[in-house]
Amino acid sequence: MPTPQVLAFDIFGTVVDWHGSIAREVAALYPAVDANAFALAWRAGYQPAMQRVRSGELGWTRIDELHRLILDKILPRFGLTYLDEEERAHLNRAWHRLDPWPDTVAGLTRLKSRFTVCTLSNGNIGLLTNMAKRAGLPWDCILSAEVFRAYKPDPRTYLGVAQTFDLAPERVMLVAAHQDDLAAALACGLQTAYIERPFEFGLEQAKDVSPDLANTLHARDLLQLAEQLGC
Amino acid sequence: MPTPQVLAFDIFGTVVDWHGSIAREVAALYPAVDANAFALAWRAGYQPAMQRVRSGELGWTRIDELHRLILDKILPRFGLTYLDEEERAHLNRAWHRLDPWPDTVAGLTRLKSRFTVCTLSNGNIGLLTNMAKRAGLPWDCILSAEVFRAYKPDPRTYLGVAQTFDLAPERVMLVAAHQDDLAAALACGLQTAYIERPFEFGLEQAKDVSPDLANTLHARDLLQLAEQLGC
Repeated sequence: MPTPQVLAFDIFGTVVDWHGSIAREVAALYPAVDANAFALAWRAGYQPAMQRVRSGELGWTRIDELHRLILDKILPRFGLTYLDEEERAHLNRAWHRLDPWPDTVAGLTRLKSRFTVCTLSNGNIGLLTNMAKRAGLPWDCILSAEVFRAYKPDPRTYLGVAQTFDLAPERVMLVAAHQDDLAAALACGLQTAYIERPFEFGLEQAKDVSPDLANTLHARDLLQLAEQLGC
Repeated sequence: MPTPQVLAFDIFGTVVDWHGSIAREVAALYPAVDANAFALAWRAGYQPAMQRVRSGELGWTRIDELHRLILDKILPRFGLTYLDEEERAHLNRAWHRLDPWPDTVAGLTRLKSRFTVCTLSNGNIGLLTNMAKRAGLPWDCILSAEVFRAYKPDPRTYLGVAQTFDLAPERVMLVAAHQDDLAAALACGLQTAYIERPFEFGLEQAKDVSPDLANTLHARDLLQLAEQLGC
């Protein structure tokens, strides 16, 4: 395989710890709530909400809006129907305030020295920019489903990265902690790197991180990926 | 006026010295060519080329492609019809290799400490990303006509920045060295900062940089803008 020129990163779960970050915010704001269950319930609404857009039931909608639809739906289950508009808007922006995994900033900084590093997330541009500024994520470029008007795993997103940089698909490597995302990128001709994030769903819900030989690379974290790519 | 949260920067002429950079590349590659005239001729084709897209004569086209159309058209005038495909492609990417003005990197770094700094250029995302990586421009986010599928001065570009960050237009400030760009942003409700770039068209073609009182701010360069904005 040729050396990739662009590394495109999945964000939620791969670069930042959505479960821990959401649970910590909820626990701090609303101590009576089961913060672990709340984080899982909010995230569980994510794929079905995007499916409503993919199916055409909803027009193009940014993730900020989808997060809010899901939030409004789950609040009763957690006894939080009393939250006013300002409190809901603030809580919804918790997705802009997700913390990176401990290896993320150092790993990206090393990778950036040799490759163009960009996001490829279903999160919207504003969310990803605010997140990067707060967490110190040193992106060269923020690409998003919002740029391509299609959510992953739509081929337009993976091929869109290659087209953006005028590269053949195999000169782009998708870096993600999710095999389905990587499989869709592989099908488009991209290279792929799987990152183990065993506690993406929290310490109580460890996930399977065993290697899939279809991927170009398999790394414990972004520092090990940097090592594998000679940075 | 409220404090802006996002500063959106015009690029060609405002942040980077297109005339000097193109002229230097041409002079180094083809010493017999009048490099000053070549740079001016290439840039002179820019607005007419975008007009072909605005009018619908051409479908949506990235600036890389428009630069190439103009290049192919002006080569005969400069006795360069003998350039092969590879040489033309390399020369066309000179727009990815433009040098920043001397104050640019220090100014942006100071402004980034307090504001979200993004591009708002008719240049395509790949061009702007390659340029930023080479020149060390510390953008928080790269926005482009390519994201909004419209060239400046279309209102969709200026309002698109505000919508991207979920802000009222007056919380966004356009920073540019061109009064027509700033006037269009003002008409959309953005704040504006004019930057003096008297030698945008080269030392032999000094341009008028006198203040227009309609702008929110008027600064000699990005360091003075940082000072005015308290960074």
